[in-house]
Amino acid sequence: MQLTEKAIKLIEGKNFGYFATVMKDGSPQVTPVWVDHEGKDYILVNTALGRTKQKNAKRKSEVAIAIADASNQYEQVSVRGVVTEQTTKGADEHIDKLAKKYLGKERYPYRSPNEERVILKIMPEHISE
Amino acid sequence: MQLTEKAIKLIEGKNFGYFATVMKDGSPQVTPVWVDHEGKDYILVNTALGRTKQKNAKRKSEVAIAIADASNQYEQVSVRGVVTEQTTKGADEHIDKLAKKYLGKERYPYRSPNEERVILKIMPEHISE
Repeated sequence: MQLTEKAIKLIEGKNFGYFATVMKDGSPQVTPVWVDHEGKDYILVNTALGRTKQKNAKRKSEVAIAIADASNQYEQVSVRGVVTEQTTKGADEHIDKLAKKYLGKERYPYRSPNEERVILKIMPEHISE
Repeated sequence: MQLTEKAIKLIEGKNFGYFATVMKDGSPQVTPVWVDHEGKDYILVNTALGRTKQKNAKRKSEVAIAIADASNQYEQVSVRGVVTEQTTKGADEHIDKLAKKYLGKERYPYRSPNEERVILKIMPEHISE
């Protein structure tokens, strides 16, 4: 399904997503993430290879994410979906784009020399708002 | 394990939790919730019998919750834990207590006549902040 207008508006704001993945033992994990989108088709999350959420989404592609308005937490959208692709292509530029959006900085300031960034593409399957 | 000072401070603020449970098919769900705590031992979430998160936590007691400062989303704590108990006892009074905290109202205004409130007691097992 496609992202709703409300979801896109929340994603385009400087709002965090709370991204849930499933651990190896089947239990959930949830962590705050910066969010972006690709048209109406995908929510994008940028993380690094080897992070728990990245490995979880590789093993089990079903994920969930709630995005809340940073200035009014009652405005929110909860999405269940599937990570259909993980790509390192363009992921380094993409984290800079997110640093610009969220921090007003030209470059992402928290880079660590050994990490490789990766974009998770989340295809929405169920949206509740 | 016990709740950290930071977790307790975030829980005691008018801050939302983003509560992740696991669906029947093993995929995660995440929804915003009001939060409370019982000493250093439990995070409390108040929901209604029959809601997806309640049924999910009944089936699979491993859950996760991220609590974010409503005035600064960079201040947050992410908890993985287990719902060790679900109780309807005192749950009706408890939702009024939460309405007082979050809305400044003496009584929870969104009651529906057919719902029975239930408190989920989450024992923390892993805290990341």
